[in-house]
Parts: sequence; C-alpha cells; structure tokens
Amino acid sequence: MRFRAETTAGQISDLVGGRLFGDPNRVLDGVAPLERAGPRHVSFAASRGYDAKLGRTGAGAVLILADAEPTAPRTSTRIVVADPLAALGVLVSAQHSRPADPWGVHPTASVGRGSRWSGRIRLGPYARIGRNVAFGTECVVGEHTTIEDEVELGSACRIGAHCTIHRGVRLGDRVMVRTGARVGGAGFGFVTDGGKYTRIPQVGNCLIGDDVEIGANTTVDRGSLDDTVIGSGTKIDNLVQIAHNVQIGAHCMIMAQVGIAGSTTVDDAVTLAGQAGLADHLTVGRGAVVGAQGGVIGDIAPGSTVSGYPARDHRTVLRQTAALRRLTPLVAALERILERDE
Amino acid sequence: MRFRAETTAGQISDLVGGRLFGDPNRVLDGVAPLERAGPRHVSFAASRGYDAKLGRTGAGAVLILADAEPTAPRTSTRIVVADPLAALGVLVSAQHSRPADPWGVHPTASVGRGSRWSGRIRLGPYARIGRNVAFGTECVVGEHTTIEDEVELGSACRIGAHCTIHRGVRLGDRVMVRTGARVGGAGFGFVTDGGKYTRIPQVGNCLIGDDVEIGANTTVDRGSLDDTVIGSGTKIDNLVQIAHNVQIGAHCMIMAQVGIAGSTTVDDAVTLAGQAGLADHLTVGRGAVVGAQGGVIGDIAPGSTVSGYPARDHRTVLRQTAALRRLTPLVAALERILERDE
Amino acid sequence: MRFRAETTAGQISDLVGGRLFGDPNRVLDGVAPLERAGPRHVSFAASRGYDAKLGRTGAGAVLILADAEPTAPRTSTRIVVADPLAALGVLVSAQHSRPADPWGVHPTASVGRGSRWSGRIRLGPYARIGRNVAFGTECVVGEHTTIEDEVELGSACRIGAHCTIHRGVRLGDRVMVRTGARVGGAGFGFVTDGGKYTRIPQVGNCLIGDDVEIGANTTVDRGSLDDTVIGSGTKIDNLVQIAHNVQIGAHCMIMAQVGIAGSTTVDDAVTLAGQAGLADHLTVGRGAVVGAQGGVIGDIAPGSTVSGYPARDHRTVLRQTAALRRLTPLVAALERILERDE
Repeated sequence: MRFRAETTAGQISDLVGGRLFGDPNRVLDGVAPLERAGPRHVSFAASRGYDAKLGRTGAGAVLILADAEPTAPRTSTRIVVADPLAALGVLVSAQHSRPADPWGVHPTASVGRGSRWSGRIRLGPYARIGRNVAFGTECVVGEHTTIEDEVELGSACRIGAHCTIHRGVRLGDRVMVRTGARVGGAGFGFVTDGGKYTRIPQVGNCLIGDDVEIGANTTVDRGSLDDTVIGSGTKIDNLVQIAHNVQIGAHCMIMAQVGIAGSTTVDDAVTLAGQAGLADHLTVGRGAVVGAQGGVIGDIAPGSTVSGYPARDHRTVLRQTAALRRLTPLVAALERILERDE
Repeated sequence: MRFRAETTAGQISDLVGGRLFGDPNRVLDGVAPLERAGPRHVSFAASRGYDAKLGRTGAGAVLILADAEPTAPRTSTRIVVADPLAALGVLVSAQHSRPADPWGVHPTASVGRGSRWSGRIRLGPYARIGRNVAFGTECVVGEHTTIEDEVELGSACRIGAHCTIHRGVRLGDRVMVRTGARVGGAGFGFVTDGGKYTRIPQVGNCLIGDDVEIGANTTVDRGSLDDTVIGSGTKIDNLVQIAHNVQIGAHCMIMAQVGIAGSTTVDDAVTLAGQAGLADHLTVGRGAVVGAQGGVIGDIAPGSTVSGYPARDHRTVLRQTAALRRLTPLVAALERILERDE
Repeated sequence: MRFRAETTAGQISDLVGGRLFGDPNRVLDGVAPLERAGPRHVSFAASRGYDAKLGRTGAGAVLILADAEPTAPRTSTRIVVADPLAALGVLVSAQHSRPADPWGVHPTASVGRGSRWSGRIRLGPYARIGRNVAFGTECVVGEHTTIEDEVELGSACRIGAHCTIHRGVRLGDRVMVRTGARVGGAGFGFVTDGGKYTRIPQVGNCLIGDDVEIGANTTVDRGSLDDTVIGSGTKIDNLVQIAHNVQIGAHCMIMAQVGIAGSTTVDDAVTLAGQAGLADHLTVGRGAVVGAQGGVIGDIAPGSTVSGYPARDHRTVLRQTAALRRLTPLVAALERILERDE
C-alpha cells in the first residue's frame, strides 16, 4: 500500500504515539510486510512471532513491541508502540483517508412508507428500503441493496452493495454485511409425500447480534418456526451457507465456503475452517475447531479439534493417515501370510 | 413464530377442520416446536416419529394424528387432524398473513419492447425486463432483478430480488428463483491450444420444469450446444453450481453448495446432500443418494447410497473407516511380523 | 442449437473455408454433438479423440480434420478444416447473431464525476459508475452493476449484470466478469485479542490481467497490505473464493467452488478442479493439477498431480484406496494373528 503523501519516521512515531529509535528523518512512502519491505516502507511486527522476519527485514522503519527492539536491524528506524497492529491501523487510516461518502439519500434511492432513522444515514444509488424499516444512527446502505419491510437495524451498520435483507430481520449495532450477501431468505425445508415435496412454512426470523460480519455472497436463511441466530462478535467469510434454525454463539470465526445445515447449534468461540460442512441437528461445543474441509456428522465436544470426513479428532486423523501410508506397501505380504495361515 | 393476534384452541381447530380434545378456550399466541413450546404455544407432531417429544411437551395445544392422541399430555389441548403439517401451513398462513405486495409495475421498473404478460404481474422496484419477454399470469419479479430478452416464464413464477435470468431461458409454471440466483449464464468451456484457452461457444439454452425451486446465489449455466435441463419438481438449495449441459430429472433434492460438472446426467428422485460434488460426463441413477461432501467420479447405479471420496457404497465406507481405526494401532506389530517373516 | 435459418453443407463449407466431400446440397438447421446429431444437424470432431463417436454419428454433416475423413460415415457430408472447433465458432457466430445491444448509456444508468471512456461504451439499465472511473474503448457494463470510484478498466472488458467492482481495482484488456461476481471487496483478516476480533486493514488492491475471466457469484478479495493478483489468461469458474493477497499466475484454470485462502501463491498454468481447497500461505508450482475436492495443506511441487485430503500424489491416493479395500476384510484375521503372536 502506497501513502497518499510522503512522510517521515518521526511524523509516523508522533502520529501513533510511539518511541523512536534511529533516524527520525527517514522518508517513507508506503507500508509493506517485513519480508517485502524496502528502505522507503514502514513495516510492522505484530508479536514476537515475527522476530525472525524482523531480523532480516529491509524496511526503512518498523512498528514493534518494546522487547523486540534489539531484534530489529540497525538499518531500520524502530518505532516502539504498545500494539503494533493498532498503530498500523492508525497509520493506514491517516494515509488512506479519502473524502468520505456523503451522508444523505441518493436521488435514485427509494424509501417505503413508515421507514425512519435517527441522525444521519447514507443510502446509495438505487438502494431500496421497504416499509417500516427502522435504522439506528449513522447506517450506510450500498448501491442496489434491498432492505425489505420491517427490518430493524442498530447503529453504525454497514450494508454493502447488492445485498438483500429480508422482511423483519433484526441486526444489532455495527453489523457489517458485505456485497451480495442474503440475510433472512426462506430456508430449504420440505416434507415428502410420495416423492413430491411440500414446503414447510419458513416464518421464523433471523437475528444478528452486535459486531457481526457477514461475507460477500454469503446466504443466511431465516428460521422455519424457530429463529436463526448469530451471536455478537461472530465473523463470517464469503460464500458461506447458514441454514434455517441454526444457532451460532458469540465470537465464532467461520471461514469461506463453510456450510451449516438446518437446526445445528454452534457454541461460542468456535472456529470453522474453509469449506468445512456441518450436518443438521448437531451441536458443536464451545471453543471447538473444525479443520478445512472437515465433514461433521456427529456432535463435537467443547474444545476439541477435528478434521477429515467423517470429522474426528485431528491427531487421530494424522495417525490413521500415517498408518495407511505404512500399510499400503505391506498389503500383498499380509495377504500371503493369511493365506498360508489358513 | 408469534401470531398477529391471540387466538384460542377452539378457533384453531375450526380453522384447520380438526377434532378437539381438552380445553377449547386455551389462549394461544404463537407456534413453537414441541421441545420448546410453552402454555401459550400451539405445536405439532407431523408423524408418529414425534411421539417421544409429544409425550414431554409443555405446549398449550398440539396438532396431531388421531392415533397419537393418547400420547399427548393431558395439559395440552389436542387437535386431531389428518395431516398435522398441512394444518400447520393453514394456521401459519392465516396468522402470518400480511398486506400482500400489490400487483402492478413499480414506477422505477423498466420494461423492454415486446414484453407482455397475461392477467396480473408484480414488477418490483428497479426490476429490468428485456425485450420480448413472455410471462404467464400472476408472476412476481423482485427488486433489482434482470430478465434478459426473449425469456419465457409460465404462470405463478416467483423470481426473487437481485436475480439474473439470461437470454432465452424457459421456466415452467410455479418456478421459484431465490434472491441472487443466476440462471442461464454462459458455461465454462475452453479448448487449450499451447497453454492458451479459447472459449467454446455457449449457445445452448436452459430449460426449467414446473415447480422447480432454485436457491439463493445458486448458478445454473446454459448449455454449450445442448441445453441444460432441470426436471419438474426438483428443489435446489443455496450456492449450488450446475454446469453446462447438465440434465437433472424430476423430483430431485439438491442441497446447499453441491456442484455438478458439465454434461453429467442425474435421473429422477436423486438426493445430493450438502457440498457433494459430481465430476463431468457421469450418470447418477434414479433414486440414488450421494452423502454430504461425497465426491462422485464414476457412474452411480440407481437406488444406491454412496459417500466419501471417491464416492462408493456408503456401508463400504463405514466398514473401511472402522477397519482403518482397528488397523492403526497394529501397524508396528504387523511390520515386525513381516520383517521376521522374511 | 438451432440455426436462425436453414443452410446447406456447401454454404457452411464456404463460410468456414473448408474442403467438402459428399453432398453439398444437404440441408441443415442446427448443431448437435456427434452422439445426438441427426440428418439435419452439422456436428464436429475437434480432434482424433472423437474418432469412435465420429464413426457412429448420424449427423448430416461433420466438421473434421483432414486425416479423420476416412473415419466419418459416408452418409455424412464431410467438411475438412484446419481447426474444427474454430470453424464451429465461425458457424455459430454467423447463425446465432442477433441485433447487438446498442452502444451508449442507458437513461437509468448513473455516472459519477470524473469518469471517462475512449470511443464507445455500453452502460446497461441501472448501472452505477462511481467517480474517476477510467474505461478503455468498447467496454460493456451490465444491468445493476456497481463500479466504485477510481477503478481502471482496459479495452473490450465485459462486466455482467449485478457485479460489484470495488474501489481502485485494475482490470486489463478483454476481462470478462460474469453476473454477480465481487472483485476487490475487503478480505477476511482479524487479530484476536482475548477472544475478540479486530479487523486488520484491508487496503491493498486487486489487479486483474488481460483476458482473465471471473465466473458468476465468484468473490475475489482485495489485498490487506499487498495486492491480490490474477495473471493474464487465467479463467475462473462460478462460486470460487479467492482471498486477500493471493497471487495467481497466467493461464491457470480454476473450476467451480474452488477456495484459495489468504496469501497463497499459485504459479502459471495450474489447474484446480472443482471444490478443491488451498490453505493459506502455500505455494502451488507451475503446471500442477489439484483434483476435484482436493484439500491442499502444504506446498505442491511444479508439475505434480495431487488429490484427496490432505492432498498428496494422485497415484499414491489410488494405491492407498486400493490397499484399504483389500485390508478391510482382513482386519479380524490380522488381529487374531497378533493376539496369538503375543
């Protein structure tokens, strides 16, 4: 990332409230990771885990923790801060700032009867707000987004372009919905009657807590009779599927292309890695981790780490994989032994 | 789900044509599943499979089959009906009813030359209809949806918000396309010539039968020279990929995030569970079931149930999984035997 | 595919510059694949790999290579060309042509200050172009598409309906983005601090080379500090996820529903089959192939072919699968031997 304008290490240190060691007049024009930074870049070491890269960096300046100072090369200006990543955020905000999109309702937007907001709002071009929608203050709605009747949003929600927020959905404060996400659509529920399918009513709601993030083109279905619930602080990546009646706790991390089938419950602080799948009506315990592509077809105990299909303890998977590798060249010999043995 | 207005068990029984046992004056204000229902909820037991939950429910009233009546607790008012789920549907419709969206063309919608409909239509805000599109009666087109030139739709189709129905696609009656679905886009077909790719013409069509449902953000490509075909009554969940020239029979059930590669044929009444993948140019026989995440790389016989990668008979997968579990602790001992044996 | 108007084998031969053997007056009204073609269809055999089907075809005429001429049935008119697939393209273009969509800006489209194009452009209904967007000549932007501020596009780009091209993204020449794709949205990057997640700045860019194709509802995130890069000639299918800082080389083929996690590097000419997943911070070498549903959790050497989870050499996977099949019926006997042996 390039800065809008050149700056010096001293100016950056002042901006982020750091203590500077080395040359304050070093001129810098962008940010880069330690391994690719050059003499005009500032870089950062978020934790001691970056020590090895820090020792080899060619960065002109580095944002670091106090106890990492001896590790940084003397050719870099060292800026010591309490939280290098937070300092980076401050720096990026200052150097990336652009004229903020104006508050107000774009002339091409359309707002239904009874919808209201407190304080400021931004409704982008072609945004469509249904009837009786309630916004908190300082919400932003992107281009071409549809918010259906009777949706309730907290304050400082940011709904991207091309999203659909279906009828009656409730969003907490600071919810971020990325472009193309669908929240609260009817779930996929049928009863079969001699091979023909009849739709089960999908009249539950979809309740999204504070600080939740929902990724691009992700789909979150509303409940059938119960509600679909996503707890506060949970972050959901792109192209994820969350089916009806799913209950997700707080502070979960759900990576791209994960799928969760109907009525499954995911407790707090669970991590679901990319492309993992959870069958319906299961429970995943607090703090559990499901590895990438893991296929969960039974309950998962709190704190466990599982992978594979069917998902089981991750170390067991590794042991079984190793066992199969060792057994494969032995098959013929084992068959011979058994034959002789008969 | 909460009712619009309080009602009594007697009124519900009358509404659904049931026979009531117990207190008809019980006041109810919502529906809940048996295990979560309280004294002001009506619940339901769709079949005898619900008997255990029915015996323990705290619901104020229950919709049940005649022979389940002795099972329900005496604290619940029992409403006996021929089909509890159908009765639930009637009740939900009555209590969930809302002012229907009005028929007509929203002033912000745009309709191309030569497009026409019989009877009533609803075109939502910013809907875009191309040229020479033909609708049956009582179709609904959601906000921001694009229907390209020469598409033909039957009657009572419901196309959600933000959908794209590409040029010339044909939809039967009562087709439901959910928000963000893409139907009839160009498929992914290339020939390679010394490492460079040239696109194969994608000029086939995409034909969708009656009563088909296509989920949110799902993509169904048009054929290259042949057509892509989806048979009547087939239901497709969210985020599914259906490639060019795929032929799907009637009354199939295709769960979320399934992918079907080009020119594969799926016969009637097939179930593909979530995240299953089918390679190209295969045949899946009538009534077959592919388990969640199953990876199909060969033809599947009618009526079979397969899972795993590569997908094979599901019982075989279970046996092999159990065998590997038993063999894993034996590896070292088996290696020793073979060494000694040499 | 049906032709707009009947034609003869002789007219087709003239059109594609072929040499004709057989009846030039044969009347034809459409194209079909060899195995489904009838006497009024023209078909094609792209290479000698089609010989068996060619020998049995009922097509009225066939587009073939010179040395395949003896293979084609005498009942078919044979049209010999240097490249049957290219000839098919010429034929399809001629017979599929329709009035091209007109150049110009639809009256419902909206263009921000400072945006400009050279030569002609087509902006569809409700397209939204932000400020300071720069187009090359002859670009097409579909219905309801959003192109944010400061995006730069080369010439002859075709952006489908309902797409989002985020702020500052750069596209080369002839880039094709299909309906509903999201290019350059913020990536999914957090640091955890006592179970709460803080977003890492996502201020890198997203750089797309010439002749790249991005499929429907696919998501390509922008970089965090680095850029996300997709090399020239790479083709990406529908519903693919490409995370922040991913670097993809030239002429790769990425099938539907693939997921690539953050900061992974994919070299030139790599093929990733459907639903494959790549973990973060890996390298996939030049020309490597990852099979369908392959789960890559380590670096992949150039030229290798891998499959399974965890992804490993494909022949090894096949050998291990066969070994497990042979070992499964032996488990009890092996356990007995070891018991006896103790």
